Amino acid sequence: MEPGPPGATRPAEPGPRLRGECGADQAASASLLSGAEAEPQRRALAVAAVLPAGGCGERMGVPTPKQFCPILERPLISYTLQALERVCWIKDIVVAVTGENMEAMEGIIRRYQHKRISLVEAGVTRHRSIFNGLKALAQDQLDSKLSRPEVVIIHDAVRPFVEEDVLFKVAAAAKEHGAAGAIRPLVSTVISPSPDGCLDHSLERARHRASEMPQAFLYDVIYAAYQQCSDYDLEFGTECLQLALKYCHVKAKLVEGSPDLWKVTYKRDLYAAESIIKERISQQICIVMDTKEDEEHVGHHLEEMLKNELNHLKVTSVSLCHAGRDLQQVILEQCYNFVCMNVMTSEFEETKKLLNTLKESNLSILYPVVVISVHFLDYKSVPVDQKMENLMQIRELAKEVKKRNILLCGLLIFYPQDKQKLQESVRQSATIITTFIKERNSGFIGQLLVA
Amino acid sequence: MEPGPPGATRPAEPGPRLRGECGADQAASASLLSGAEAEPQRRALAVAAVLPAGGCGERMGVPTPKQFCPILERPLISYTLQALERVCWIKDIVVAVTGENMEAMEGIIRRYQHKRISLVEAGVTRHRSIFNGLKALAQDQLDSKLSRPEVVIIHDAVRPFVEEDVLFKVAAAAKEHGAAGAIRPLVSTVISPSPDGCLDHSLERARHRASEMPQAFLYDVIYAAYQQCSDYDLEFGTECLQLALKYCHVKAKLVEGSPDLWKVTYKRDLYAAESIIKERISQQICIVMDTKEDEEHVGHHLEEMLKNELNHLKVTSVSLCHAGRDLQQVILEQCYNFVCMNVMTSEFEETKKLLNTLKESNLSILYPVVVISVHFLDYKSVPVDQKMENLMQIRELAKEVKKRNILLCGLLIFYPQDKQKLQESVRQSATIITTFIKERNSGFIGQLLVA
Repeated sequence: MEPGPPGATRPAEPGPRLRGECGADQAASASLLSGAEAEPQRRALAVAAVLPAGGCGERMGVPTPKQFCPILERPLISYTLQALERVCWIKDIVVAVTGENMEAMEGIIRRYQHKRISLVEAGVTRHRSIFNGLKALAQDQLDSKLSRPEVVIIHDAVRPFVEEDVLFKVAAAAKEHGAAGAIRPLVSTVISPSPDGCLDHSLERARHRASEMPQAFLYDVIYAAYQQCSDYDLEFGTECLQLALKYCHVKAKLVEGSPDLWKVTYKRDLYAAESIIKERISQQICIVMDTKEDEEHVGHHLEEMLKNELNHLKVTSVSLCHAGRDLQQVILEQCYNFVCMNVMTSEFEETKKLLNTLKESNLSILYPVVVISVHFLDYKSVPVDQKMENLMQIRELAKEVKKRNILLCGLLIFYPQDKQKLQESVRQSATIITTFIKERNSGFIGQLLVA
Repeated sequence: MEPGPPGATRPAEPGPRLRGECGADQAASASLLSGAEAEPQRRALAVAAVLPAGGCGERMGVPTPKQFCPILERPLISYTLQALERVCWIKDIVVAVTGENMEAMEGIIRRYQHKRISLVEAGVTRHRSIFNGLKALAQDQLDSKLSRPEVVIIHDAVRPFVEEDVLFKVAAAAKEHGAAGAIRPLVSTVISPSPDGCLDHSLERARHRASEMPQAFLYDVIYAAYQQCSDYDLEFGTECLQLALKYCHVKAKLVEGSPDLWKVTYKRDLYAAESIIKERISQQICIVMDTKEDEEHVGHHLEEMLKNELNHLKVTSVSLCHAGRDLQQVILEQCYNFVCMNVMTSEFEETKKLLNTLKESNLSILYPVVVISVHFLDYKSVPVDQKMENLMQIRELAKEVKKRNILLCGLLIFYPQDKQKLQESVRQSATIITTFIKERNSGFIGQLLVA
């Protein structure tokens, strides 16, 4: 897979359309949070983020540190960076990585075109890594491009689903209280063992919470805490909120977070993350047609029937004949799934046009884009084996666009006269389309599936 | 999907081959635990299990209670029952379900042929459900088929991956100490909030543990605890170990559990569970050939090349000509994946033979079984469109066996003279085979894929 031509930029808003992204949704999100004044308040806040990413992921049971484990072929940490960088009021993102992973991390930033990222060397513990990140923001180095923020957010590299809502809530609460952190209800009861390995007592679940990330601090508070902090704390401590309390007497404000804040810890969490990401980018399908002229055409008939079958998804239709403007809009809205109807020809002309537009757009830099090239077999027009010649062509085409992170397969739809059989054929088509989109697995690219 | 003919029984050992199942592996597992005396010790212990399954799963965000959510079309609770019933020293399994789910639960037990299960009505809280389960074991009802156990294990319906090891450890520890429970290290720091929603203090992570399931008790201890227990405890309590401590002054022994003990709580946990189950049943492939006579045959050549490509999996080969005895062995070992080579004919004879054997075996009652019907296209022997006639046949065949939970697809392998092209073709075949096995998605059944 190639990262796209040098100098090309990926679309401005790469993530799935979540609440609270920069751009159109932001005003709405802001008013949800704290009324009309929220927006200027955000812009006024000078915020940076620090991401300790020096861990070795021993709990995962795999050799790769978990923040670098691939999900849809892209490292986990890139999803987390994407979640932070789409929040435009976060000015700088400082990532602490170990020396041995520095080069790999630079490669990730280049390939996925991450913005506003600075790298620092990780320490041997989580606290030392955070401290290194904070030092880089302190402006004691003359050559630093970073500016000292008012508020700093600390987040984990392995919590990729953080939303702007909670980032804003902890940042705003930190400004007011000096420190703030996201919390979640406990899933299990917490107990305290006695030295002989028996139950000493169990904690009342309702009176305790799990401390999650993100957390935020007035920069001066957390920096002062780390400067005073003992070696023991730097080695064995885990909780930044505790440092702010211990060394600066700042009681952190606790903010209820969503279940999405969970930390990718075990191998099963990687499975879950992959499924969530696949689900998010499979909500919308764009049906591309080569013509809108003849409304009575089989293609339109099929399009309508498909829309009915795919009614649990958002389906949009565009035509390639309007110089591709509709299509550009769909690409900007981050639709990652395309069904291209080749009605007029038995070749791949329309599909090739679509593929070229997609390649130029760089939509596929962050997520694999699915294209299903639909063809018809109505027994009358073209003989079967001529149709099957296409087979070899789609394999080569699929191999070529796979390099650009586009997953292409063909779908040959039987178009019988019999209405009931046709309905069955369309239902089968819808099943194949949704399966290919949901699984997003490159194992079936280049296949000509039959419905 | 049909549950199989009435009266047919599923294979004795239905689960994937995990450590510690009844049967051949048990002796090995027992010696792992506590030496040679472990096995008689297990048999001597009269153990029952109680599973509260009356919850409504509000945290999942889906209308179905989580214990009834389907994974590969089978309800989650059935996997948990399977994990318990394969442990032969657990004599009775009492499940507490709400009145409205009673019929559905009876259906699950019939369809998946669960054994040693008794149903009781759930209470409005978890503790009341457990108490109802314990009462059913108390033998105060004359008509009860249940016998009062010495030790009772309490487990959650939504922890399907519990292994015999930990069940035995808690049961043995309960016999010695009166109570025992599985614990895990904390993933997040636990904090205590003050009434104003700020941090009061954070708990030292190393000195606390998450209390998980299973737990086990001397029956008399836990039954006495529930009989004395206050209404407040029955309504708001969560921790059985705490009840044993409070009412019977029994300090539970804590047993380190594996990460597998985690509780399916959120939607992401269902995704994770599905991926884990798919991974477990995808480790082994059986290649079925119609002949062993001609060692020089292309089929054997291909078989060898495929084995090389699939070297990360356990691959066995069997022949259908030895009256199917090898195949029976493979089925007994719970291999859920079959690649059937149709070398001698351009029809599906061998595949049909295999499908019939699989149907008779009832291997597919618990997990969908994958069958890939392999055919060759060497340009010489059969013309392409005659081969393609097969296509329609495999669609019908796939539809039919899907009713028996068998997922069938076809694979047409080009067999060119050119060695390099052949190698590529085989590599492609291996990719398609592993993809279909891993995804185990019914959306592509009946397709004739081409490599």
